[in-house]
Amino acid sequence: MIPVVAVHGGAGSRRGWRNYDRVRKELEAALDEGVRAIRTGSAVDAVEAAVRYMEDSGIFNAGVGSVLDLKGGLSMDAGIMDGRSRRAGAVAAVEYPRNPVVLARIVMEKTGHIILAGRGADELAKKLSLPRHPGPSERAIKRWKELLEKVREGGNTYYALRYKEAKELGLLDTVGAVAVDADGGTAAAVSTGGVIMKFPGRVGDSPIPGAGFYADRWGAAAATGYGEVIIMSMACLRAVEKLASGSSPSEAAWLTVSSITALFGSGNVGIIVADKYGRVAAARNTEVMPWGYMRPGHRPTIYI
Amino acid sequence: MIPVVAVHGGAGSRRGWRNYDRVRKELEAALDEGVRAIRTGSAVDAVEAAVRYMEDSGIFNAGVGSVLDLKGGLSMDAGIMDGRSRRAGAVAAVEYPRNPVVLARIVMEKTGHIILAGRGADELAKKLSLPRHPGPSERAIKRWKELLEKVREGGNTYYALRYKEAKELGLLDTVGAVAVDADGGTAAAVSTGGVIMKFPGRVGDSPIPGAGFYADRWGAAAATGYGEVIIMSMACLRAVEKLASGSSPSEAAWLTVSSITALFGSGNVGIIVADKYGRVAAARNTEVMPWGYMRPGHRPTIYI
Repeated sequence: MIPVVAVHGGAGSRRGWRNYDRVRKELEAALDEGVRAIRTGSAVDAVEAAVRYMEDSGIFNAGVGSVLDLKGGLSMDAGIMDGRSRRAGAVAAVEYPRNPVVLARIVMEKTGHIILAGRGADELAKKLSLPRHPGPSERAIKRWKELLEKVREGGNTYYALRYKEAKELGLLDTVGAVAVDADGGTAAAVSTGGVIMKFPGRVGDSPIPGAGFYADRWGAAAATGYGEVIIMSMACLRAVEKLASGSSPSEAAWLTVSSITALFGSGNVGIIVADKYGRVAAARNTEVMPWGYMRPGHRPTIYI
Repeated sequence: MIPVVAVHGGAGSRRGWRNYDRVRKELEAALDEGVRAIRTGSAVDAVEAAVRYMEDSGIFNAGVGSVLDLKGGLSMDAGIMDGRSRRAGAVAAVEYPRNPVVLARIVMEKTGHIILAGRGADELAKKLSLPRHPGPSERAIKRWKELLEKVREGGNTYYALRYKEAKELGLLDTVGAVAVDADGGTAAAVSTGGVIMKFPGRVGDSPIPGAGFYADRWGAAAATGYGEVIIMSMACLRAVEKLASGSSPSEAAWLTVSSITALFGSGNVGIIVADKYGRVAAARNTEVMPWGYMRPGHRPTIYI
């Protein structure tokens, strides 16, 4: 089978994305990393490599580019799942690691648990000498200061910006990847800085298997958007279940997004799906969700 | 409609439960609290009151009685869901509040988020002047010291005890409650100190809607057992889906437990289920799971 890697850079409104050329370049580079990993490694290696690249890039809301919470702090979530073993690992509300997806993989493979949160997870990253987060980016600090004024005008400095406001700002940009390797093994991974101006410690869909990511022997899915909606709809579990009952990735992605739109309205979710045959598709009810896929020996295909 | 409240005190092995009389008394008292709340309040009030009572009792692995992690620390999870609005709230890896379920309800009703983890959640509890946890109980410290020796003998002081060991120790004892009020509103709530000797910060099924708890217009469910299995099987979502497709609570509970046994083996899950008509049932694949239910004006029924 010809392996495939697909990535997305987050769903949101047009306003949130300024530099499309840069986004295209970074998605291509992330696909390159994923495909390089999958030549000799597994689907898990591929999604980890692709997401790690996007965490490092600084232009996505994950890892180095993470947006800030109400208090100006970092609180990142990430998850990864191996469809072959159906094992998953995730970290929630971490601030130490530069690459939360790498820590999520360690949770999956070494701890016997699925999710580690907060201080405990940060201490593990430190203990394992994982690269440390360089601290909030200038862009993140600038955005936070602008938004803080808005929140203050709203009269409530403690509770989070409403979803509508986050949506309008186009800041639902979790990154994610799915992959299928030569043996038909599937994997999914996601990473995010969370919704901007969130309540400190808020955990979204990204560290929850079935919500923000999922993989089994039928395929893999990674979601982006408003975490609370994705948790309540278990978007990725639903999408992969549709593959199991015979849907194509395109049908699975669109049916999942449509049912979310019916229940929760529009502008809140995007998803990428790969099936075990290596077919990939994406769907969204947001204005934009840059994504793309690539197979070894081929050029990447990017949709912006 | 006649309201109903059901509670459980955790699933586990016989070895974990020494004082059955005490357990029976505490479950009856928790049901009393729940029924008192439901006379004038909603199903949400009832499950919060019942779980809060069990958190305070000190004999269950939740709130005051929480077991300790590998480092001897507290790291509690709790969740609550209102089936009428399909809103959920949860806290993960908290150590400050005496009653994590109360904080979970505040997350549901006040923050616009679903899950708050770690420091951010603890700070909210402090800010709201919620009662502070009195610190680990003597019983919890004693157990921790005994187990620490075992872990050390195993040669690995950093990673968690294997699931098999936790299972044999009968320490999977999350508490939970479901309720249906006079208007047919449903609710579920759970609270736990987590699996004993877990990795610090480990998050189980209790703060994840669909995994450890779930409620919608068809009914409500609360699970207990090995969190990682409950997350991967989305036990409570599956059980309530079965109600929606016509199963009785008893069928829904047993079908859910059976499918988990088929996939993950035995000794890892118990569940209580209520449907919108106020029928309640429980199922488990563990040796024991003390549970019971009560309707206003009736005596409680307890199964140990």
